[in-house]
Amino acid sequence: MQIRHVSPHDYNDIISVLNDWWGGRQMVDMLPKLFFIHFQNTSFVAIEQEQIIGFLIGFVSQTYPEEAYIHFVGVHPDYRKRKIASRLYERFFETVKEKGCRLVRCVTSPVNRTSIAFHSRMGFDIEKGDQEIEGVSVFTNYDGRGGHRVLFVKHLQDGGRNGDERSVSAGYQAAK
Amino acid sequence: MQIRHVSPHDYNDIISVLNDWWGGRQMVDMLPKLFFIHFQNTSFVAIEQEQIIGFLIGFVSQTYPEEAYIHFVGVHPDYRKRKIASRLYERFFETVKEKGCRLVRCVTSPVNRTSIAFHSRMGFDIEKGDQEIEGVSVFTNYDGRGGHRVLFVKHLQDGGRNGDERSVSAGYQAAK
Repeated sequence: MQIRHVSPHDYNDIISVLNDWWGGRQMVDMLPKLFFIHFQNTSFVAIEQEQIIGFLIGFVSQTYPEEAYIHFVGVHPDYRKRKIASRLYERFFETVKEKGCRLVRCVTSPVNRTSIAFHSRMGFDIEKGDQEIEGVSVFTNYDGRGGHRVLFVKHLQDGGRNGDERSVSAGYQAAK
Repeated sequence: MQIRHVSPHDYNDIISVLNDWWGGRQMVDMLPKLFFIHFQNTSFVAIEQEQIIGFLIGFVSQTYPEEAYIHFVGVHPDYRKRKIASRLYERFFETVKEKGCRLVRCVTSPVNRTSIAFHSRMGFDIEKGDQEIEGVSVFTNYDGRGGHRVLFVKHLQDGGRNGDERSVSAGYQAAK
């Protein structure tokens, strides 16, 4: 498997399989082409035998330049359980660390237990929300349509959470 | 009317009226909350009597730091034809110019004649695509699902298109 930066040429290939990879869910509206054009340097595809078998779309926050955000990650159903998502995440962590980021955020649904377990294994912590659902802290109505979300944060620096890191996180919380 | 930067707190207010402002079209999936968190410094809301009457979501391209992109613009139906969108665009132009951008891009559908006329009035040029529809050059299957798109570009610098600006544009074209 090879990992390279995403290119706008990848868009049609990915969008044509996206709903299938999500078991038929309508996902394509959530992934406009702009991410494949304007966030190439922090977005990646995994390739095997010249075929895209996974991708990660992420960016550095423009509001909080020390934070990065992972928007969308997908792996071909036939290639799951091969640590492809982990390798895409690791590549993303390295890249945004070089760009000066100290933490990475992402968001998932409380029903997505696989995603919650994956992010925990990858070293993400769950942020304290306003409610707890089946033992998981969630932000209620996060999506503006009644949907609850689990918010993850991972600190990239060694040495754990020092005072500085807490203040970055606090700034973010205050703005939400 | 007052224009200020967007805040994550604005998300629920906007998302709750979005489909109505678009005449019932399903638009909310195209505007996830991430834009209201991570692109605050280049996104704006227009306010009158403490109510949001318009908004613009845009960012500086991470791939092409001299380019900015406008993703989403909406104006309350009761407040149209009052140059609210123009003022939001002008504020965006000033902001991204200060951040070192030399051109602004955006994308619309060929059926959206109002949008095409608006962007022409705002000084955008239409990029040459691979087909012409009713006199307008379009990029066919731009959205990966058979949808055609009109691509706009506006040069922010004075003095028109010099050699440098052409090369920025050519770099973008080559990457698409």
